[in-house]
Amino acid sequence: MTAGAANNGDQRFLDWLDTNRARLLGELGDLIRIPSVSALPAHRADMVNAANWVAARLRAAGVPQVEVLPTDGHPAVLGEWPAADPDAPTALIYAHYDTQPADPFDEWETPPFEPHERDGRLYARGASDDKGNLLIPVAVAEAFGHLAGQPPLGLIFFFEGEEEIGSPNLRPFLAAHRDRLRADVAISADSGMWSHEQPSLVLASKGLAGVQLDARGANGDIHSGLHGGMAPNPLGALATVLASMKDADGRITIDGFFDDVRPLTELERAEIAAVPFDETEYGRGLGIAGPVGDPAYSPLERNWARPTFDLNGIWGGFQGVGSKTVIPAEAHAKITCRLVPDQDPGAIIAAIARHVATHTPPGVTITIDPTAGSSRAYAIDSQHPALLAARDIMSAEYGRDPYMVRLGGTLPVAEFFKTDLGLDTIFLAWEMPDENLHGPNEFFRLENFDRGFRVYTELFKRLPKS
Amino acid sequence: MTAGAANNGDQRFLDWLDTNRARLLGELGDLIRIPSVSALPAHRADMVNAANWVAARLRAAGVPQVEVLPTDGHPAVLGEWPAADPDAPTALIYAHYDTQPADPFDEWETPPFEPHERDGRLYARGASDDKGNLLIPVAVAEAFGHLAGQPPLGLIFFFEGEEEIGSPNLRPFLAAHRDRLRADVAISADSGMWSHEQPSLVLASKGLAGVQLDARGANGDIHSGLHGGMAPNPLGALATVLASMKDADGRITIDGFFDDVRPLTELERAEIAAVPFDETEYGRGLGIAGPVGDPAYSPLERNWARPTFDLNGIWGGFQGVGSKTVIPAEAHAKITCRLVPDQDPGAIIAAIARHVATHTPPGVTITIDPTAGSSRAYAIDSQHPALLAARDIMSAEYGRDPYMVRLGGTLPVAEFFKTDLGLDTIFLAWEMPDENLHGPNEFFRLENFDRGFRVYTELFKRLPKS
Repeated sequence: MTAGAANNGDQRFLDWLDTNRARLLGELGDLIRIPSVSALPAHRADMVNAANWVAARLRAAGVPQVEVLPTDGHPAVLGEWPAADPDAPTALIYAHYDTQPADPFDEWETPPFEPHERDGRLYARGASDDKGNLLIPVAVAEAFGHLAGQPPLGLIFFFEGEEEIGSPNLRPFLAAHRDRLRADVAISADSGMWSHEQPSLVLASKGLAGVQLDARGANGDIHSGLHGGMAPNPLGALATVLASMKDADGRITIDGFFDDVRPLTELERAEIAAVPFDETEYGRGLGIAGPVGDPAYSPLERNWARPTFDLNGIWGGFQGVGSKTVIPAEAHAKITCRLVPDQDPGAIIAAIARHVATHTPPGVTITIDPTAGSSRAYAIDSQHPALLAARDIMSAEYGRDPYMVRLGGTLPVAEFFKTDLGLDTIFLAWEMPDENLHGPNEFFRLENFDRGFRVYTELFKRLPKS
Repeated sequence: MTAGAANNGDQRFLDWLDTNRARLLGELGDLIRIPSVSALPAHRADMVNAANWVAARLRAAGVPQVEVLPTDGHPAVLGEWPAADPDAPTALIYAHYDTQPADPFDEWETPPFEPHERDGRLYARGASDDKGNLLIPVAVAEAFGHLAGQPPLGLIFFFEGEEEIGSPNLRPFLAAHRDRLRADVAISADSGMWSHEQPSLVLASKGLAGVQLDARGANGDIHSGLHGGMAPNPLGALATVLASMKDADGRITIDGFFDDVRPLTELERAEIAAVPFDETEYGRGLGIAGPVGDPAYSPLERNWARPTFDLNGIWGGFQGVGSKTVIPAEAHAKITCRLVPDQDPGAIIAAIARHVATHTPPGVTITIDPTAGSSRAYAIDSQHPALLAARDIMSAEYGRDPYMVRLGGTLPVAEFFKTDLGLDTIFLAWEMPDENLHGPNEFFRLENFDRGFRVYTELFKRLPKS
């Protein structure tokens, strides 16, 4: 950590961390021991305990206004530490205190809710996702309180307890507490880095639109001998409709699908090209020859910055051993599309519905129903001042520039903050791709607690007002 | 039965039937009471009992040589009554003494293996399929024995016990007993009629070729956010391949599929056109607008005389409620084709395999495996002398000409007799479409026992030597 110490070092803060590190990590252990599994009803009381623990921790850090607020599900924790200087910026710090379930338990080397340190790694469910990362900005706020009376910016800590179950009550909460969530920027302490050696910052994530198609032919399963050549086959019809949605190169051919897609700018293409991607290595990892898809774009452009369309499931008729000469009455398929900025999930679903209506073979009816979880894409301007500040701090901390990445997946929280609160979000946390998030033997690199402490310290000092 | 009595009546035979009807139907009841369910191991002893009962019944009818012969499954019964006149023809009479299972038992109005007569119908499992029909030619042979010393032709009775389980040991049996099965023609006493009022004779049935396609992309299910736009989707690839196998009008587009298909002759098209088919009624029955398929052929031509291709099942990926953003590793489909004469199942499977190989999108591999049950189509020349004799007898019996039908389904026994024994088969039995064959409350119209007795009596007298 020579680079970080050299560049981000404010010696008083580093000394404070040295003095308090054992206590801070002991507190992380205490939080981990509360099995706050949001998905399992048996842990309902643990969820309340965890929320109360987090609220008490914020108070102990010096946060003057802290509340545990109810939702229709698990409670949220809100901590407000207004800035002394009315011209100082305010940051909304987001994280979650809930965890994934820990099963299968017998694959854990040590019990999931009993933290064990081995080789500088803290093994436990939630150690990295997200309890270790949640406590970093809290520790930094506490340090500012001790060393400077209070942080140099306004802080609003918003920690939810339902991230691992899809944040079903997040938007109602944002709507209900909108006035207390005013800030200049959001900072999510629930995120990862490209690798332990290579930092990264997130520029964009995809939206999502999902549908189920239900195809129906005759009013029951019928015999292919009695009806072959005469009766419609909903499996064949569904295959025909699905196949018509992409061309031979994998380009989506649904009319209207790309209507709202912004062309990639030269800057965006350059940002993406700056991130290395080894096609051979990618193929080897999946056991295929290499990436496939629209040849007009690079693989990372397709995954990060172009909308995608995937069949997630298909079923109908006989699935057993041998053969059954049936013409099934029904066939079904699940589709999800990952969207880019400006695409509206409802418009995409409507485009799919129009395509289905115009491509269904005679004799079969296909109905289309949206599946839950639609969301719009999120993107932050790569020249956003707060992002540039974070970028500089990360470069100094790691001694190398962060990759500016986009995600093929979806980060609903960022889109909700943008849509509901008008906030851009910077993702700044240290959940590493190899840390078994959601699986057995999750761990957190304790080294990243120090790293995060230094980075958040600098960011709190240097965050510009928007 | 005025027509039948008038035209097929040989008064001595009709008197014999009147004298013996009660005994003959009582014997049918005895056979029905043996629950010879070939599919269920619990009925193994019943199968042996039924075979022995049938053998004893043949001996009682006067058949001089009767044997119960073992197979690798349930035994077969062989009864030989050679002709006195060396110039007389010999007929191989085929039927089966096994039945379908009777469940669901609680849907039967009276116990399935206890025959009950109501309104001239005998209700019981196997009453129509095939025990009632099996005993008709046996009764006729017995009548000839009593009235004329012996039948006017050679008779070989071959009754199997595995028809309802797909006749797995039929071909080895035919090979093993080939010398004892020499005949001029086969007559199957396991068949139906167009309706109770309208007789029909079978000209052809379809062959069968089945395959399973297994598509594979990456080496495991992967996340559509991490891999969308880059990783191959085996569901989409499978849909593309399947959709490419038919055009928009439902015509099969697999190269080579029609290579061996004979064009329909004018006579064949006329024979098919002579059978009424109400498209509106057909559609109403299935809850669809009407039949669909290649407009160059009528619906009955497509079902009876053109090869067909149907997807029977498809599956892969997520099939639950809601959405799951997965790119599945695998997708699967089942296909069966109904074939016409001269099409070879192996050649059809090879054509499908070539089509799959040339139409699979990049990044996905699709393997193809034949499913069991392949068979060739069967057809008899519509001018076959034995068929013409049967046609005349049926016309006289019913007072109207039989429909000369083809079946969209498969009759493997006819193809095996043709391929393995060189015999054409005439189908002559009275399993009616409304008699709940294979379902609860199966019944047999006792009137058809008389009708069958008269028809078989005439046919035995008039069957030409081939």
